[in-house]
Amino acid sequence: MQKKGTTSAEEEHVSREEFTLRPVGRVKSSYATPADAPRQGRLSDQVSEIHIFPEYRDALYTVEKCNQLVVLCWFDRAERTLLRATPPGQTTERGVFSIRSPARPNPPIALELVDLIQVKGTVLTVRGLDAIDNTPPVLDIKPFIDLDRVQQTKKA
Amino acid sequence: MQKKGTTSAEEEHVSREEFTLRPVGRVKSSYATPADAPRQGRLSDQVSEIHIFPEYRDALYTVEKCNQLVVLCWFDRAERTLLRATPPGQTTERGVFSIRSPARPNPPIALELVDLIQVKGTVLTVRGLDAIDNTPPVLDIKPFIDLDRVQQTKKA
Repeated sequence: MQKKGTTSAEEEHVSREEFTLRPVGRVKSSYATPADAPRQGRLSDQVSEIHIFPEYRDALYTVEKCNQLVVLCWFDRAERTLLRATPPGQTTERGVFSIRSPARPNPPIALELVDLIQVKGTVLTVRGLDAIDNTPPVLDIKPFIDLDRVQQTKKA
Repeated sequence: MQKKGTTSAEEEHVSREEFTLRPVGRVKSSYATPADAPRQGRLSDQVSEIHIFPEYRDALYTVEKCNQLVVLCWFDRAERTLLRATPPGQTTERGVFSIRSPARPNPPIALELVDLIQVKGTVLTVRGLDAIDNTPPVLDIKPFIDLDRVQQTKKA
């Protein structure tokens, strides 16, 4: 917890507190290394599996009713110190909060929208995940909902 | 499905490792308590601010080009032990991975889609955030991109 002069001690405590995360599952995919993975999982038809740890099984109750899921993963191999990067196919540098680069300041959490194909026990078969086999711990799974829709993204 | 025997010790180590997150900013909003906040920020026109800590300022470079941002927050007041919950207005219990309840198994990470209204220094003015004032540490900000679009969500 670094000290900054611009905030009160209480605010500093609330907002700078570190916390510990535990994965709720892991990914099984055919991508053995980062070079094998597509730049965006959504651009690929490849099917992967999300193996939820047994103790979270109950959190999957009725998940088969969802067509699309938002998967949050910890990209534990990603660069953590870059604050700017140049997206593939572009020539202009951007701040990482304005692009979807896997390089993020601490923490590198990836957000992936996937199609849910099948649920068997604690294994979800999904399409659209670009995660490397066995590597990224899954942090959370949420259904995609209509509130996530936007009408236009022209500036992004 | 307690198939513990199917994973190697190494896999277990990789996927069960805990890790530490540091917030990159905090929210300033007019919601003082959870009771003040709307059930879904997207349903409200309320404007909030995201204050990014100075050391991450460079990650905001060109963020003003984005119309919508996806904000990941740590919901530090949310219930962490529930695996099932009944969504507001419904009568049927669901697993929390199939609903957008703030109660998540560890970690309770919230995903919020917001409209970006203004960027001034390290302060983003946004519409659609339902976070409580000063409480939830911001973990990451990403632009909403076309890949996040889905054609239908009928089952969800």
